[in-house]
This record gives sequence, structure tokens and C-alpha cells, in this order.
Amino acid sequence: MQTPADICQSPLTSMKKKKLIFDLNTGVADAQALMVALAAPCVEILGITCCFGNTPLESVLKNTLCVLKVCKKLEIPVYQGCSQPLLAKKCQVEDCLGKDALGDFSDPESPSLDLVQKENGVTALIKMVNQNPGEVSLVATAPLTNLAVAVQLDPSLSKKLKALYIVGGNTDSSGNSTVCREFNFMADPEAARIVLDCYTCPTYIAPWELSCSNSLSWSFCEQLLSQNTEKASFLKKISSLLMKKAQSPECQKELTAVKMFSSCDSYAVAAAIEDMFVTESEEVAVTVELEGTYTRGMMVVDCMELLNKKQKAILIKKVDLEKLKNLFLNSLK
Amino acid sequence: MQTPADICQSPLTSMKKKKLIFDLNTGVADAQALMVALAAPCVEILGITCCFGNTPLESVLKNTLCVLKVCKKLEIPVYQGCSQPLLAKKCQVEDCLGKDALGDFSDPESPSLDLVQKENGVTALIKMVNQNPGEVSLVATAPLTNLAVAVQLDPSLSKKLKALYIVGGNTDSSGNSTVCREFNFMADPEAARIVLDCYTCPTYIAPWELSCSNSLSWSFCEQLLSQNTEKASFLKKISSLLMKKAQSPECQKELTAVKMFSSCDSYAVAAAIEDMFVTESEEVAVTVELEGTYTRGMMVVDCMELLNKKQKAILIKKVDLEKLKNLFLNSLK
Amino acid sequence: MQTPADICQSPLTSMKKKKLIFDLNTGVADAQALMVALAAPCVEILGITCCFGNTPLESVLKNTLCVLKVCKKLEIPVYQGCSQPLLAKKCQVEDCLGKDALGDFSDPESPSLDLVQKENGVTALIKMVNQNPGEVSLVATAPLTNLAVAVQLDPSLSKKLKALYIVGGNTDSSGNSTVCREFNFMADPEAARIVLDCYTCPTYIAPWELSCSNSLSWSFCEQLLSQNTEKASFLKKISSLLMKKAQSPECQKELTAVKMFSSCDSYAVAAAIEDMFVTESEEVAVTVELEGTYTRGMMVVDCMELLNKKQKAILIKKVDLEKLKNLFLNSLK
Amino acid sequence: MQTPADICQSPLTSMKKKKLIFDLNTGVADAQALMVALAAPCVEILGITCCFGNTPLESVLKNTLCVLKVCKKLEIPVYQGCSQPLLAKKCQVEDCLGKDALGDFSDPESPSLDLVQKENGVTALIKMVNQNPGEVSLVATAPLTNLAVAVQLDPSLSKKLKALYIVGGNTDSSGNSTVCREFNFMADPEAARIVLDCYTCPTYIAPWELSCSNSLSWSFCEQLLSQNTEKASFLKKISSLLMKKAQSPECQKELTAVKMFSSCDSYAVAAAIEDMFVTESEEVAVTVELEGTYTRGMMVVDCMELLNKKQKAILIKKVDLEKLKNLFLNSLK
Repeated sequence: MQTPADICQSPLTSMKKKKLIFDLNTGVADAQALMVALAAPCVEILGITCCFGNTPLESVLKNTLCVLKVCKKLEIPVYQGCSQPLLAKKCQVEDCLGKDALGDFSDPESPSLDLVQKENGVTALIKMVNQNPGEVSLVATAPLTNLAVAVQLDPSLSKKLKALYIVGGNTDSSGNSTVCREFNFMADPEAARIVLDCYTCPTYIAPWELSCSNSLSWSFCEQLLSQNTEKASFLKKISSLLMKKAQSPECQKELTAVKMFSSCDSYAVAAAIEDMFVTESEEVAVTVELEGTYTRGMMVVDCMELLNKKQKAILIKKVDLEKLKNLFLNSLK
Repeated sequence: MQTPADICQSPLTSMKKKKLIFDLNTGVADAQALMVALAAPCVEILGITCCFGNTPLESVLKNTLCVLKVCKKLEIPVYQGCSQPLLAKKCQVEDCLGKDALGDFSDPESPSLDLVQKENGVTALIKMVNQNPGEVSLVATAPLTNLAVAVQLDPSLSKKLKALYIVGGNTDSSGNSTVCREFNFMADPEAARIVLDCYTCPTYIAPWELSCSNSLSWSFCEQLLSQNTEKASFLKKISSLLMKKAQSPECQKELTAVKMFSSCDSYAVAAAIEDMFVTESEEVAVTVELEGTYTRGMMVVDCMELLNKKQKAILIKKVDLEKLKNLFLNSLK
Repeated sequence: MQTPADICQSPLTSMKKKKLIFDLNTGVADAQALMVALAAPCVEILGITCCFGNTPLESVLKNTLCVLKVCKKLEIPVYQGCSQPLLAKKCQVEDCLGKDALGDFSDPESPSLDLVQKENGVTALIKMVNQNPGEVSLVATAPLTNLAVAVQLDPSLSKKLKALYIVGGNTDSSGNSTVCREFNFMADPEAARIVLDCYTCPTYIAPWELSCSNSLSWSFCEQLLSQNTEKASFLKKISSLLMKKAQSPECQKELTAVKMFSSCDSYAVAAAIEDMFVTESEEVAVTVELEGTYTRGMMVVDCMELLNKKQKAILIKKVDLEKLKNLFLNSLK
Repeated sequence: MQTPADICQSPLTSMKKKKLIFDLNTGVADAQALMVALAAPCVEILGITCCFGNTPLESVLKNTLCVLKVCKKLEIPVYQGCSQPLLAKKCQVEDCLGKDALGDFSDPESPSLDLVQKENGVTALIKMVNQNPGEVSLVATAPLTNLAVAVQLDPSLSKKLKALYIVGGNTDSSGNSTVCREFNFMADPEAARIVLDCYTCPTYIAPWELSCSNSLSWSFCEQLLSQNTEKASFLKKISSLLMKKAQSPECQKELTAVKMFSSCDSYAVAAAIEDMFVTESEEVAVTVELEGTYTRGMMVVDCMELLNKKQKAILIKKVDLEKLKNLFLNSLK
């Protein structure tokens, strides 16, 4: 049987590489997702825009460069995007990710921030998409501030995207960050609303619940990290603090990133690079509540079609976990 | 084996009758729930306070009297409570319940509204509870306006209740009435908030989802209504319009009351009169969102204990359907 | 010249006495306003309902009885109304009014709370109005909780009132209590909204700004309080703390009650008992903002008629200060 | 006496020219304000960024070019900024300004939109300020969308501005656009909040009320427009529709722009170019209400210092109308 990777590697189809742009707030989950894409033969990463998130923008930039260095892909341009939400107050950092959101990883030879591009991430994003109209898939695993500002600068941007993959939102009312709410949407609710309302390209959403109901086993995790490669040992190192916390019951229920091997960030990447990865989904209008005392930042799923909103999003409900395992194993080789 | 009914019927324990007050917005579901209680040997209904809801207050009063007449219990006092929500706009009537919310039932000999007590329902409620401190369970199947006003008039009211059974709220974000929201809470969100915040007695909530996940079969329904009694034929008559609508797919997903044989109103009554009826529940703080654009009226379930609210409610999750069947069968004899 | 008092005192016109009900949260300003009415020959006070406010309900009841005692009118029934707002959090007490909101007044022979009527203030209010349909003016100088609950219990109440005089709200955006807001409306914004929306009788509003632009001089105040009467010495005693604070510049701008001799409470009473007292007013629709972060509780004045609200209120803009002086002087005789 | 213009024209002080950037939604008022600056000898206009507003962005661009053409200053670069608010719905166009917001002005030889710069207005704004750190005053007479996006892209932007002059907001609760609100702030409340919160340079605000209390006479207006110059006849033409509407009483109270000769746009420009123009002002923290039902978009003035906001704005309260007359007369020569 021919896998997508085979097809991609054949000379005749090399032009069919999938062009991706990442918008990251690189912590452990983003790092793992990025490593999946970096190792995928079919994928060309045009650039990475960084956004504040679990950790300040400067750490995000540094973390991103560390991942690229381990994967020997420092040639991929990294851009500095927004350092704060449009209006929301700064959220507190999840301490089980470490102060740097990367398990308090420290590399004496970590790459210098001088490697970050001089151009602003938002304008770079607009430029990259406009240079590849209809061809770029954008994978956003951070608060959606960069995307919201980009569409304000260039309202035609979303029409020129091939697809958008968003990690964020929750579909039941329990949330992962606070009552009713998921971290990425809550970190910049206005940006989430703007993106869900203004991006008219096919938009896939990997909500918080997806990782709960589609998780890999911890034994697979052991197997994965025990591979004798530089990448595996890097991932093991940055995720060790998280895995320790993950075993404490109170952390389990509270934080997104602790369930590392079911991280939505990787699911979104997998959905972007493997077409049959999503096995169940729902097309439905969604928006974001901005005004509630308890529900500000909550994703609103319009199952009953009461919002009269033409533009629908594709909520990912089930994924092919065997494919995910292969992607993970491949990513650490 | 001795059932609670046996115990209740024995002369020695006749003093152990459960004292109930009902707060209703009598449509088909409330009617059915009331009939369950009227037929239960262990139960003494002190009075029924009426509230606006799916249908205007006058219809609610008339419907309530009709049920009492069929059950030959017109001696139970019926009181007129609030005719409008505290602040919310009037909700539109669900037309599959008929204009009178009772399947367009018309009885040429229906009881006169003169039978309604002169005393206001809210003050009557306060009086009945104060005359039976610690002994009364209050079953509320309507918007919670009467209860909210009562606790404002007498802040010590809830301490004197044995328990409160509320039909309302939803625990996932899909809702039954509009996006994210259930009818009773949405019909008067401020009242729901006041009741959930100020009633300190044990408070059981039968949320919208309960009826979806704990429903009786339509074949049981047929069996039930085909009994050859006056009560069965009354219930068949008032529910015929609803059952017709219930078979149209678009109605299925939209309206509370159409799933008659899984009505939360009956579940709340059953929980109040049969202690072992609830087989699974969750103690958790709940409140109501008042400010959201899309989520105003949504019940907020504080699974992560972020609200620092001492008072917990008991969310009913699973019930004993065999007991429910017996109660239903008994109610139409 | 014949004054209204002369007319009133003539035997032929004694039937024309103005029937008033007061709804108070008796602090210094309410006390002064009540004394004006108690001394007015044309006025019959049917009863006084008390509401929480600057000070807890128990202090309000006690303070009210003290005023009645000094004025030798303990025969007027005093009722206990609501002890808390519908939804708002309790406001902090203004400390320049003293802990009891009456200048830390202490009377070893102050009347016992046993003198308070057993009947609830809200139901008493409803009863008094229904016994005198079309004849009663209601003067409300407290948060509007009692009035909001009353109209919920008896929606026809407001039609039976002759007029309603409200102290509360602000017409510019500076407020007196917090940014944008006046104390009475902010203390229970939902109640204020209910009253402004549901009371259809002629409704006069004495907003916060009225007292700023229509104030009496401090020299008049000296003259007034230096009268050698029991009432004057009582008023002097309860207002001494306030007057001291009033001289500190920071207090001047912050608190309603500090500008005692321009208190809106007295203006509302004067408007209720002297028809020509209001010399300038504006008929305009008003409502209350409930949802703003900064503006919750702010009165919204619909000058441009954008709300399409039929019911208009009468905003008092200018008053006859000479008449006010006479009322004050008369009140302490 | 030496006027600022004299100083400016002297060779020794030519380096002291005031550098301005305009952010406009060019209708009649913006046009007039721009003409004042274009004629001022002391002023160098680095560029003009355009924003949607009373009229769509394309008309704003066209109108701006028309003004520059009449004033023979087409060398000043004009940039295209945001075409829509961050989140707010589009506001309806004020029809007394004409469909193009320029009195339905039509010039067969109006400049082509090809003259608009290719660079985006927001990035151009950032570039111009960064090239002249500490020297540029920014005059914003439009919804503040461009400024809000700019500070998101470059958080250090505002520190590099010499000063910011904003036209917008209202200080009493009557508003000019809808209940409680002024047009520019209401057209993009989130942008207004971002600008008032994030711009730390000296920030002058010309609120709606300023034009009401500091207006020039219509007779001066006649005198001004009757000058026999191309500029005067242009201004007369574009303002004729407005002046006709201005004489109808209903328009008077409703719309900003109708009171042309007291337009806040010109006041803001005058404040930017003539230091002694502002004769009374108040330093106070301000913000924008985002959540109210009636007050969303209202400027909140924190007179009582309750917001604990360090950054204060300078509210312009009174201006030197003689200086304004001179500026106007000079602008049409």
C-alpha cells in the first residue's frame, strides 16, 4: 500500500507538497505538533508566526527556535507577532508547563533571538499567503490575535487561504481553563470572535473535548519517548515536568497541556497534513460569547441554526489514532 | 418486600406523609407530573402555586384546575402567582403544546377560576412553609419567579424547606430553547439566579439533558395511555397534539415538552416522593449566566470549583426508570 | 395670600389631605424629608415601608422610629420591607453618615423594634394602595427593591397610585457613588429598571444632579438648626457628623448625603406635597443600564427618543427654593 | 506681535515645523479640519491614513484626494487603512452628509484612486512615527480602528508619538449618535478602548460636547464661505447640503456634523497646531464602556478616580474661538 508519504516522495508529485504556515505559542504541545509537521515529507512550512500565550512572546520565540534547532530546520523563518491580546487581560501561566512553558528546558547553546525575522509576524503572514494564493493551510495553536489583526489589515486574506486549522474552544460547558472556557479562546475572546466571523475559508476546529475523547495511552507514550534519538530525548526532556504533574489527580482535570499525548495541537496538524485523519466531524456555525460574566470566551455552537450564520466551521469529533501514532513515531526518528 | 407506599398506608406511619408544595406552569408535562403526585399514597399536597410560563397565567390556573378535577382533588388550594418574569421579555409559546399549553384541550364543564384562592401565591407559599417548618418539599417545574419573589419577602424561607426540586437548566451548551439555554431558566434568568444563590436547603436539579438520556419508550407510552380510565383518557387527549408533533423530526430537537415520556417535570416529582429514585447525581455549585449575548439564562456548572460557592446543588444524572413506570401506571389508575 | 397650608387647615377642605406612603432607607436625608412631611398640615402619611440601603434594614427601622418619636407620630405604622437587593451585591456603607446612617445617633430611650408592624412592608404597601385607589402618592427615597417586588406581586398596583416620586439616578455620566452611577439605582439596578419600566402612574424623578444645581446656603442651614426646638436639636445632632465631613473637600464631591441642605429626598417630598414646587422639568423616557462594566446602574435618559418607550418619566430640573426653605423651617417648629 | 506663523516662517526656526499625521474618515468636518492644517505655515503633514467611518473607505480615500487637489497638496501621501471596525456592526451613514459624506460633491476631474499609496495605512503609520520618534502629533478624527491595530502591531508606537489628538467620546450621557454615545467611539468601541488604554503619549480628547459649548456663529460662517477663492467655493459646495439640513430642527439635535462651524475635527487640529488654543481642560482617566445594552461605546470619565488608572487624558473643555476664526479664514485663502 502506498502511503501519502510515498506519494509525496516520488519525484513526479513533489510539486504537491502541502504548504503550511504555523501560528504558535510554543509550549510543549505546540512543540510536539511542530515536530510532527517538520518530519512529514509532504509538508513545506513557509514560516512560523509567534503569538503570546501560555508564556510571554519572547519565550515563545526562543522555544520555537529550540524546536527548529533540534529538528535541524533553522532555515524556516520565525516571526514575532502580537505580544498581548486585543482587550483581554493577560492570563496566568500554567505552571505545570514550567516558567518557559517548555518544562523549564534550558539549553546553554540555544539559538539567539537574532535569528527571528525583522518583519512583523502579522504582515509576514499576509505576505506569505498573498504569494501563494489558494495553496496555504494555516495551523493556529495559539490565541488568535495574530489572525484577527491580519484580517483587519487585509480583509481578503481568508479567501486566499486553502484552509484554516484552529486549536481552541470547547463544546460542552465545563471548559479547561475556567468555568465554561478553553484557554486559547479565553486568552483573546475578541480575536477568536473576529476569526470565526471573518475567515471564510474552510475552517477546522479541534476543540478541547476532542483530546479528552481521543487520547493515546501512556504506554504508547513511554514507547515513543524511549526511542534512542536526539528528537526523542528533547521531547522527553521538555515534557518530563508535565508528565510528573499529569500524574497528580488535581492537575489532570485542570489543564489542557498535561494530557500531552492527546494534545489538540497535534490533532490540528495531523488534520492539516493527512486528509483522512478526521473520521468524524460536524459542520455547524460557531461563534464566541464576549459578554458573559461566566461565559466570556466560551465557544457557542449553533446546533439549532438559530444564529442565521452562513459560514459554518467543521468541528473535529473523531480522528484516526493509528495515523496519529505513525505521525508521532515518524516525528522523532 | 415493603414499598414506600405500603409503609405510608400503614396506620402507624400515616404521619410520615411527605408534604409537597407545587409551583407549576401547567402544560402537558406539569399535568403529568402533578397526576403522579396526586396518585401517590405517601404524599400530601399542601397547595399549588401557579406561575406564567409556556402559557399565560390564566391558562395555567385553568389547566391546573382541570387536572385536579379529573383527579377529583379540587380541594387542594390553587394560588395565583407571578404573571411575568422579573426582567426578561416574555417568551413565545411553544405551539406544539397548543394555545393553552394543554393540547388545545377544551372541557365545557371545566372548573371556574373562582376556585382559585384569593391569597397571592407567593405569600401563600411563605405561609404554608412557615406553618410546616422543615417538613415541606417544594417541586418547581416553572420559571422560578414565584420562588425568587418569595425569598425576597422572607429571606429565612429556604431554611425552613426540607428540600427543593427544580426542573430547569442545561449542562451542555446546546440548550433546548435557544442556543445554549433551557426554557425555564431562560424565561426568567434573574429568578433562576436568585433561587440558585439564595435557597440553602438541599436543592435537586433535573436539567434538560436528564430527560434526553433517561427516556421511556414510545411503546410503554402506548401501553400507559391505552388504560381504560378517565385519567388515562384525559392524559391521552391533552398529549395527542404533542405526540403528533413529536413525530416530526424538526420538533424533536427543538422543544422541551415534546418528549413527553421523558419529561423532567415527572422526574423531579419522582425524586421528591421516592428517595431511591435518583441513582446517580453530582453535588456541584451552579449559577446562571445573566449577561451573555448568546448565553444569558444558561446554567453554569462549576465542576472545577472556581466560583468559591459554598452552597452546592445536586444535579440528577440517572434515575430508576422502572420506578418511574410504576409511578406513571399508578397515576392513571 | 393664602398658602396651601391655610387651605388645608380650613374645615371645608380637610378632606383634601394628600395621602402619602413613604418607602425609606432612613439616614439623615430621609429623616429630614420625613420630618418635612410629618409637619405639613395637608399631608396624611398612611404608612412607612423600610428598605435596606446605606445601612442594614434593622437600623433603618430603628432610625425611622426615632424620627417618628421626636415628631410625636409613633402612631404611623412602620413596616419591614426587603433586607437585600434582588441581585446586586451589598454596597458599602457611607461612613460619613455614621455606622447607623444617622450620625451615630444614640438615644437611650429610643423606641423598641416591637413597634414595627408584623405585616411585611411589601404586602402592606399593596394593601394600603388598594384601599385608597387613585389617591396615594408614593415617595421612594431608598433603593427600589420594595417597589419592584410589590409590582411583581400585584401588576395592577401602579395604576392605582396617584403618583410616584423617586429619588435616584443621575443624568450626567459622573455619578455620585461610583463612576457613572448614583447610589439608590446602583444599590439595586434590577429593581430600578423594573420600577421605571412597570410603573405607569405619573412618575417624578429627583436625580442626583438636582441637588447639586439647586442647593440652599450653609448660612440658611445654620439659621435652621439653631431654632430652639426639640426637632431642630434632633436634626442638628444627627447631622453633625455629616456636616463635619461635608467641610472636608474630598467628601464634598463623593457622597450624596453630605450636601444635606440640598438633599434630593426632601425635594421629592416637597414635590409630592406642594404642586408648584417643581418649576422646571422634562418629560422623557428613562431606563437603567444593567449590563455595563462601568455603567451598570446608570440611568439612561432617552433624549433622542430612540428607545420607543411610551411611558415617560418627569425629570425634575429646577425647584422653588423659597418654598423649600419654608417647608424646612416649618418642619422643625 | 509675532504670531506662531511668523515664527515658523522665519528661516532660523524653520526646523520647528510641527509634524502631523492625520487619521481621517473624510466627510465635511474632516475636510475642513484638513484644510486648516494644510494652510498652516508651521505644519508639515507627513501622511494621511484613511479609515472607514460615516462613509465607506473608498469614498474616504476619494474625498481626501479631492481636498488635497483643491489645496494643491497632492504630494502628501494618502494611505488606505481599515475598512471595518474590529467587532462592531457597521453604522448607518448620516444622510445629511450626502451619500459620499461630502455633500454629494462630484468633481468630473476628481483625482484617481491610483494616487493612493500601495502600502497599508497602518504599517505606514508605524513607519512614519518610527522615522520621526518623539516629533509626530497624530490627529485622529475617525473611528480609532487604525490606531488600535497599529499599537497591536507595534506596542512601542505610542511612546514615540509627541501627542495624540482624538475627536470622539461624550462627557454627558446624552450622546450624539444614539442614546449615551458619540459616533466615532460607537463605530468601533473596542478600538476606542484599546487606544485610550494603550496610548501613553499625551492624549487630548475633543469630545462631542465641546462643539456644542464652543460654537461659532452662522454669520461668521457666511462671511467665511463668501470669500472669493477656490477653496472657499469648494467648502461652500461640500457643506451646502449639510447647512440646509442644519436649519431643520430635528437634524440639529441629532448629528455631529451638522453644526459645521463648531466641528470637533477642526478643534482637534487647532489644538495640535496652536499651543494656546485650548484655554480650559481637565486631566482625567477615561475609558470606554464595551458591554452595556444602552451604553456600549460611551466614554467613561473617571472624575472620582475610582478606576485606579495611571494614564490620564486631557479633555478639552474651552478653546480660543478668535484663534479658530483666524485659522478658518486663513485656511480658505
